[in-house]
Amino acid sequence: MYKKEISKAVINRLPRYYRYLGDLLEKDVVRISSKELSEKMKVTASQIRQDLNNFGGFGQQGYGYNVEYLHAEIGKILGLDKKYSVIIIGAGNLGQALANYVDFERRGFFVRSIFDINPNLIGTKIRGIEVRDSEILEDYINNNQVDIAALTVPKTKAPQIAADMVKMGIKGIWNFAPTDLHLPKEVTVENVHLAESLMKLSYRLSVRETPKE
Amino acid sequence: MYKKEISKAVINRLPRYYRYLGDLLEKDVVRISSKELSEKMKVTASQIRQDLNNFGGFGQQGYGYNVEYLHAEIGKILGLDKKYSVIIIGAGNLGQALANYVDFERRGFFVRSIFDINPNLIGTKIRGIEVRDSEILEDYINNNQVDIAALTVPKTKAPQIAADMVKMGIKGIWNFAPTDLHLPKEVTVENVHLAESLMKLSYRLSVRETPKE
Repeated sequence: MYKKEISKAVINRLPRYYRYLGDLLEKDVVRISSKELSEKMKVTASQIRQDLNNFGGFGQQGYGYNVEYLHAEIGKILGLDKKYSVIIIGAGNLGQALANYVDFERRGFFVRSIFDINPNLIGTKIRGIEVRDSEILEDYINNNQVDIAALTVPKTKAPQIAADMVKMGIKGIWNFAPTDLHLPKEVTVENVHLAESLMKLSYRLSVRETPKE
Repeated sequence: MYKKEISKAVINRLPRYYRYLGDLLEKDVVRISSKELSEKMKVTASQIRQDLNNFGGFGQQGYGYNVEYLHAEIGKILGLDKKYSVIIIGAGNLGQALANYVDFERRGFFVRSIFDINPNLIGTKIRGIEVRDSEILEDYINNNQVDIAALTVPKTKAPQIAADMVKMGIKGIWNFAPTDLHLPKEVTVENVHLAESLMKLSYRLSVRETPKE
């Protein structure tokens, strides 16, 4: 299907379209021209038309885009028409932040369980979701559908835990540990490297401070 | 200086080089060839040589790279030879996670204060860092050096808070709110959009599930 042909650059922009269209939906906007969307998103109108043409267009000459329809279609492309069972490995602040983020649920990502090795955390609940002992992780995965494991553990532990989970059958990992996971090709890993984001910020700040010569 | 000429793609790769070299340093590795670095990083050796040639090379024929020197030089390019005073706006789980992340300090980012409007949080401390009333934010910024404000507040509030902080003189914003901030050009904004990262993961998972036709 068409999904196979889309460039990575377009895919990287799709979540942003989806977010803007979601904001418009919340404001009960029914339709929008590529020109208006372009002004909001600070992207050229021709870029928008080009991107959306990858999926057969969606726009109508003289009418613009139907917000609800376009939002739903992009959602389908992003796989948001499905439900995902998520587990979180690591019940520290970051793991708790993810568990508390109700917006994820609205998009079909349901946190089913949190795992940790800390006896003080095991048995507690975060937004009603139980923190379980990492010891029973394999048992849990064998008995429950898990689509995505969010990994919020220290970088020294992440590679081993990820490798173990892959053996248990996990196919999708959302990795927050500041290390790259080298896993089999059939596993999908999406990294959030916070320290690297911060370095990009400091780079841009320091370039600005450097006087031009 | 050379900083002006470097492509964005190279800049985006630098934090990763910095991270790998830091890991090697921790393991007391003194030097590494581009071939070895290439195998570790899963990037071609020629890509590595090309990237590092942007900064005058650093490598010596037949010797490879001096890990400590290269780490320090890339650190300088990234602005990591300076210290940054950071404040966090929003003392929720995510703000607390950032405040607790000691690794940032090792790289020169010091969290000086956290601000929130919640009376239950004001006056508490996170890793010794006081949570202050957002009411006194302007006063604080007027009397203290602040290089970076991390914004971990709801998306409905983020644009106004960011605009206010810019008026108070803030030049660097690390934005975690799921919204784009449209601020004057002299302000540097680095976004971490978690929901968009999750959507990229679901896209890649759903493409894999789709049978090829």
